[in-house]
Amino acid sequence: MTIAPETLDAVLARIDADIETSRERLFDLLRIPSISTDPAFAEDCRRAADWLTAEIAAIGFDASVRDTAGHPMVLGKAAGGAGPHVLFYGHYDVQPVDPLDLWEYPPFEPRIVDGRIRARGASDDKGQLLTFVEACRAFKAVTGTLPVGVTLLFEGEEEAGSKSLPGFLDAAADELKADLALVCDTDMWNAETPSITTMLRGLVGEEIEITCASQDLHSGMFGNAARNPNQVLAEIIASLRNTDGSVAIEGFYDGVEEVSDAVKAQWQSLGFDEKKFLGGAGLTAAAGEKGRSVLEQIWARPTCEINGISGGYTGEGFKTVIPAKASAKISFRLVAGMDPLRIRELFRAHVRARLPADARVTFKEHGAGPALALPPDGDNLNKALKALGEEWGRPAVITGSGGSIPIVGEFKRRLGLDSLLIGYALIDDRIHSPNEKYELRSFHKGIRSWARVLAALAG
Amino acid sequence: MTIAPETLDAVLARIDADIETSRERLFDLLRIPSISTDPAFAEDCRRAADWLTAEIAAIGFDASVRDTAGHPMVLGKAAGGAGPHVLFYGHYDVQPVDPLDLWEYPPFEPRIVDGRIRARGASDDKGQLLTFVEACRAFKAVTGTLPVGVTLLFEGEEEAGSKSLPGFLDAAADELKADLALVCDTDMWNAETPSITTMLRGLVGEEIEITCASQDLHSGMFGNAARNPNQVLAEIIASLRNTDGSVAIEGFYDGVEEVSDAVKAQWQSLGFDEKKFLGGAGLTAAAGEKGRSVLEQIWARPTCEINGISGGYTGEGFKTVIPAKASAKISFRLVAGMDPLRIRELFRAHVRARLPADARVTFKEHGAGPALALPPDGDNLNKALKALGEEWGRPAVITGSGGSIPIVGEFKRRLGLDSLLIGYALIDDRIHSPNEKYELRSFHKGIRSWARVLAALAG
Repeated sequence: MTIAPETLDAVLARIDADIETSRERLFDLLRIPSISTDPAFAEDCRRAADWLTAEIAAIGFDASVRDTAGHPMVLGKAAGGAGPHVLFYGHYDVQPVDPLDLWEYPPFEPRIVDGRIRARGASDDKGQLLTFVEACRAFKAVTGTLPVGVTLLFEGEEEAGSKSLPGFLDAAADELKADLALVCDTDMWNAETPSITTMLRGLVGEEIEITCASQDLHSGMFGNAARNPNQVLAEIIASLRNTDGSVAIEGFYDGVEEVSDAVKAQWQSLGFDEKKFLGGAGLTAAAGEKGRSVLEQIWARPTCEINGISGGYTGEGFKTVIPAKASAKISFRLVAGMDPLRIRELFRAHVRARLPADARVTFKEHGAGPALALPPDGDNLNKALKALGEEWGRPAVITGSGGSIPIVGEFKRRLGLDSLLIGYALIDDRIHSPNEKYELRSFHKGIRSWARVLAALAG
Repeated sequence: MTIAPETLDAVLARIDADIETSRERLFDLLRIPSISTDPAFAEDCRRAADWLTAEIAAIGFDASVRDTAGHPMVLGKAAGGAGPHVLFYGHYDVQPVDPLDLWEYPPFEPRIVDGRIRARGASDDKGQLLTFVEACRAFKAVTGTLPVGVTLLFEGEEEAGSKSLPGFLDAAADELKADLALVCDTDMWNAETPSITTMLRGLVGEEIEITCASQDLHSGMFGNAARNPNQVLAEIIASLRNTDGSVAIEGFYDGVEEVSDAVKAQWQSLGFDEKKFLGGAGLTAAAGEKGRSVLEQIWARPTCEINGISGGYTGEGFKTVIPAKASAKISFRLVAGMDPLRIRELFRAHVRARLPADARVTFKEHGAGPALALPPDGDNLNKALKALGEEWGRPAVITGSGGSIPIVGEFKRRLGLDSLLIGYALIDDRIHSPNEKYELRSFHKGIRSWARVLAALAG
């Protein structure tokens, strides 16, 4: 069924008229501190799931909370026009907020400051997922139905490795049947230019703990003679990088393909400003592999990043201790052609081969997902690009992303679904950092964009 | 004035009769959580100073609390016989207690378990300093006076770099005039063999913070391109050691003298069991400079130890962050011939020379004191060795110590005083670690030992 232009106009007008109540609904969701990695917030994760379920049920979705071994899923289903049935995915969990003292405002007390929604999760991903919900709400209000059939899937463990997701997709495969997946967890190309992401890096998360002495030791008594796990850990971490910025794990780059000249040319045409990108983070030079552009480094090259290190005395003042243990959280971003489980094993072998006498290591895994490269063309993709271009007044572009959205690989593998990654976040939204924000404009025009995309997919 | 043997016997008998109340007094002091490095415990440090002042005043010392810019000093003075006037030093502050979950008992609720006093500070240094106070108490009770004139000096910042001490020694130089300093903050050679320490390593404490981006970054968005301070810090720490276990800072060993063959022979005769020493800490191999014995590594060779590292996300679960900063607490143990301020500058130059693009460093100092080598002979030393041998039933030995007691250098430099370092702690007292203990036997025979030493010094 094709949506008449005047119908779409009415839906867009409804979105504009309701934007203040849409914003209020978002604030309700942002007030729930649904931090998935910290067990202390498990109840809050469930509250967020319950809240979403009630909201989409009120719109007319057949909605329910589904328990998992971790945080629950939210599933909603509504019939629509005769176009492709879409499965929309978002996540209601958020990143931890530390260091809390760097926040200008309490992270779970959302507010508008200078046209921006300020709160943890405003951009990643509560604000983004509600753009789709609010678009559905407007269609329902104006037309009584949706332009295409829609299944909503909201996850609560995206920031914690999506451990329950694969099993859930398998178990609920029948309920999740669709023709196309839509995901709202990515950036615009810039504040004026919408984009659809077709390349995503994969992710392997690892935690290592180095143990030496059986207890903390006094560095006067034992210093020089006792193996110091802080030193061992530092030497292992240092060994992960070559001086040219490449990752030094043997076999790490096996199977990684060079970006084609055609793609490089397309990236060139984007007019990406490396100085500005790095400058926005207070940096001046790309730290990764020498001779590769920043876009290539973050979209098309794998990396190894030390996300956290901890060992010995780290409080106020000084303590002359040789600690018994030290640990690090280390993640790998992967590109197409890399097997996450193989990378995990290569890393562990690298660490084990570098343990000196009296040092032992234990490993803990924090998720593993492959990279994804989506087909760069297709009917649905072209319809969505066109719809976005109409909303934003300039052509939408196709981009890569350095981040990892494991769900996209799982949709492909377990449900046979291709995904369109469409998001309205901006590079300076400070997701995962203090002072996360989402532009009110992203929220408002994001809702309008989805209305247009849904209408386009129906046509 | 010579102390008659029957007088000393009466004093020793008095110590034995009063040991239970002596122990109770120690428990009162141990209950005060006087952690000097953490500003949250400043009031408790003052309480400990007040408690000591009241106790020594009750014995008959002219006692007072002396304010400093940091935690207060306690000063007490009592006349005695015509022998050398002694200045006794101990410290009432204690190390932090983390990780608290590794303690079998609450650190500030002292108790006796299997003949051992269990509490933070039981050995370092509250139990040790009270051995001297209780010896004075017994002499006063039995003879109405002391065998020699005694000045007591108790410090509250020993575990925090003794920042106020140099200025206080200068300001109070007249009041602190003495012929000899006595310090009770060291170990016995083993549980049966008393010792006097004549070599002490010096200490330089440094804290470095590496800053890269202006805020925490998402490792998906920026990973590979953004400089990661965890990685930078690890590479700098790794660069501090050569693969042969030596410290890699240029010029670090300049001026360090090799131990003489005579001293090495004396150490050989001590029958030190390297396997047992390392085995007590769950270790099997000396980690420091290759080709040097453990005793040489810890008594006569300098070291660089990483006491704490911290950067990025270290909580439960995982956070794919590239942090804005990472930091480490690093200490250097020095031997005779090394200038602490020169070592600090060499270290800082080493770090600065290894900063990659976009990495900045800030340094914070945590004290600096030189090593000390005391004259290995002398009248007072020989008297004290003999007195200790009489109490413990075997000859006392002369040893080195890997630890640092900056006060000894300050006594020499500012007051012209040599120090005798006599202590009753044992290597397994777990000072600076969870489950610190002090043997009841150390406490009891320690008091008796001081009574004998004071009597010997008078003769």
